[in-house]
Amino acid sequence: MNYDQIFDQAIERLHSEGRYRVFIDILRNKGAYPNARCFAGHNGPKDITVWCSNDYLAMGQHPKVITAMEEALHDVGAGSGGTRNIGGNTHYHVDLEHELADLHGKEGALLFTSGYVSNDATLSTLAKILPGCVIFSDELNHASMIAGIRNSGAEKRVWRHNDLEHLEELLAAESPDVPKLIAFESVYSMEGDVAPIHAICDLADKYNALTYIDEVHAVGMYGPRGGGITDRDEAAHRITIIEGTLGKAFGVMGGYIAADSKIIDVIRSYAPGFIFTTSLSPVLVAGVLASVRHLKSSSVEREGQQAAAATLKRLFREAGLPVMDSTTHIVPLMVGDPVKAKKISDILLAEYGVYVQPINYPTVPRGTERLRFTPGPAHTEPMMEALTKALVEIWDRLELRLAA
Amino acid sequence: MNYDQIFDQAIERLHSEGRYRVFIDILRNKGAYPNARCFAGHNGPKDITVWCSNDYLAMGQHPKVITAMEEALHDVGAGSGGTRNIGGNTHYHVDLEHELADLHGKEGALLFTSGYVSNDATLSTLAKILPGCVIFSDELNHASMIAGIRNSGAEKRVWRHNDLEHLEELLAAESPDVPKLIAFESVYSMEGDVAPIHAICDLADKYNALTYIDEVHAVGMYGPRGGGITDRDEAAHRITIIEGTLGKAFGVMGGYIAADSKIIDVIRSYAPGFIFTTSLSPVLVAGVLASVRHLKSSSVEREGQQAAAATLKRLFREAGLPVMDSTTHIVPLMVGDPVKAKKISDILLAEYGVYVQPINYPTVPRGTERLRFTPGPAHTEPMMEALTKALVEIWDRLELRLAA
Repeated sequence: MNYDQIFDQAIERLHSEGRYRVFIDILRNKGAYPNARCFAGHNGPKDITVWCSNDYLAMGQHPKVITAMEEALHDVGAGSGGTRNIGGNTHYHVDLEHELADLHGKEGALLFTSGYVSNDATLSTLAKILPGCVIFSDELNHASMIAGIRNSGAEKRVWRHNDLEHLEELLAAESPDVPKLIAFESVYSMEGDVAPIHAICDLADKYNALTYIDEVHAVGMYGPRGGGITDRDEAAHRITIIEGTLGKAFGVMGGYIAADSKIIDVIRSYAPGFIFTTSLSPVLVAGVLASVRHLKSSSVEREGQQAAAATLKRLFREAGLPVMDSTTHIVPLMVGDPVKAKKISDILLAEYGVYVQPINYPTVPRGTERLRFTPGPAHTEPMMEALTKALVEIWDRLELRLAA
Repeated sequence: MNYDQIFDQAIERLHSEGRYRVFIDILRNKGAYPNARCFAGHNGPKDITVWCSNDYLAMGQHPKVITAMEEALHDVGAGSGGTRNIGGNTHYHVDLEHELADLHGKEGALLFTSGYVSNDATLSTLAKILPGCVIFSDELNHASMIAGIRNSGAEKRVWRHNDLEHLEELLAAESPDVPKLIAFESVYSMEGDVAPIHAICDLADKYNALTYIDEVHAVGMYGPRGGGITDRDEAAHRITIIEGTLGKAFGVMGGYIAADSKIIDVIRSYAPGFIFTTSLSPVLVAGVLASVRHLKSSSVEREGQQAAAATLKRLFREAGLPVMDSTTHIVPLMVGDPVKAKKISDILLAEYGVYVQPINYPTVPRGTERLRFTPGPAHTEPMMEALTKALVEIWDRLELRLAA
């Protein structure tokens, strides 16, 4: 047994496929979003513009959020000091769960340390509670949903992305006595397309299935109160469990589910990933409370972000850049090769002070490597024009193809 | 298929076993540790003393930690905005990983969103990388280690708690060609006993096994620099992977591993629980940096905490209370019944303003329900005397047995 050799081989595989990851070391500048300092390969930090943050609405720098966090820090201190059951259940947690339940029109909500953990813990626990449960999973579901489904030990049927006929075919093949759970996302974050939620709920009704929707790239961003695509499409009441994150549009950190109180009680009581972990820091929870409350009543950020995304898509399209067919705020450019995607990203950072991370396997399927831009309300039109110009120049330099 | 009925039955099982959990709703008062406000069943918040926090050294309220978090909040904002690979790798994360690697004398370290996730992600990934790996797991290992081992799909051999003969028997039964990993804790948090680390490492050497130690209840608290029991016992260099938390003695939130840089690179590159999750908020990371640095050079907090634990154990023993045989800072009182343990806890909170959570299944085995006290440097001797008197009074009222 030579352990070192096995570890060496594992790392070598990444290098040989051109997908060994180097993390770009940055510090964002509060109040100057999307500006940041970059510490990679320079003498002292260099000024850059961040184009790939999931702090979509810049709420992580919003004065209300900062003030709420500062107040909590001075009122109760840094950490919660325990699990939710043992000393770590603060009044902030209780308040935020009420606020999130209200956001989605559900009876209850439950906080987790991350969106990843909320998917993993909820899906794995739910399928264990329901004997013989079969889970129907969209093929592009996020890694955390796949982890939860795998860890549940339940049978899994994978349906082709957003393909209702295929989903129905799989549902119809199971006995009516079998517990069924349809798991999908609202906004698919690497493509930017949206699930047909009402049509999926129609099938769930017809085949008596529960529904689980991941809204992490939509909460805060869609719907009149920021309740996500289920808010915009008035579908929240039809979904059994809505899952969201506090670390993207809400700008802080953490994850949650919202559902009827019985299901919340079951997950709260049975999910190891919820029970056996120190609860979210009250400082974070206080910040999220301010963020969720603000975005319930303000649409300025949402509108600014949608406008920025529309502009960038138009500029890319007009320049002939291979922008993918996104119907949302996500602006992906297809490259289709991990080495080239990294090369473009490296040139952008070194020569143009533009930070956009190349997206490679396992985040997207091999051969669909891409650059993923997330313009926000603070990215100006001149910034976008300069970015487009830079990309065209690099496309030309690397002899990549532009549309006519 | 009646889903509601299944969920009702799941909740009913908890009630019938007397282990349905009610979370106590509190807010700690910064600067007045261990004082807190309690919102449960009262008109307005009531003053209580917290006796069950894992913020063992009150670092969650330390001025250096608070100041560092406030500075980060104003410098870079609330959240990181992305995964470590996509926009969420801040300079704070890089610095803290260096600091933690140094704490344990290892080449590298890797941050996770929680200790739970660090165990789950690392163990499951490691065992998948090593083909045919067999994991040897102490029977009292934490739920997060059990989750990681189960999720790895690897073969598991459970050895009787701290029983070296049994461990050797199981190791000897496997072929020398099989990859082996011994997973255990340093301080077992519900018992307060300690693993024989050097003797386990001797067995690991003899049978060519890797070692994985969970030090979450020891980092910050043992050893001249707070490196844990492996620091105190000068055993860190013999352990392959040391896992720790940032949410207990360090007072904030998060988890990590420390190991040689090759292993860190493998886990960083292959663990879904690390790759696909928004990184820790830079505000938290800044607070932990201050906490770890402080506890590397200050032993005042450690000494105060050890003295408090020794005093409380002595007072309990002198009063005839059933204090368990802990060799560490943990002070557990055995009750052995979930209903009685909850009853004692309820009386303490309602009548004495003392908050100590009853510990029941699945946190401890059924029939070993207990109260678990974690006195810290700020719990005074008069507080401890009053607590002891209250417990003796309740023991008498509930007709529980005191030692002669």
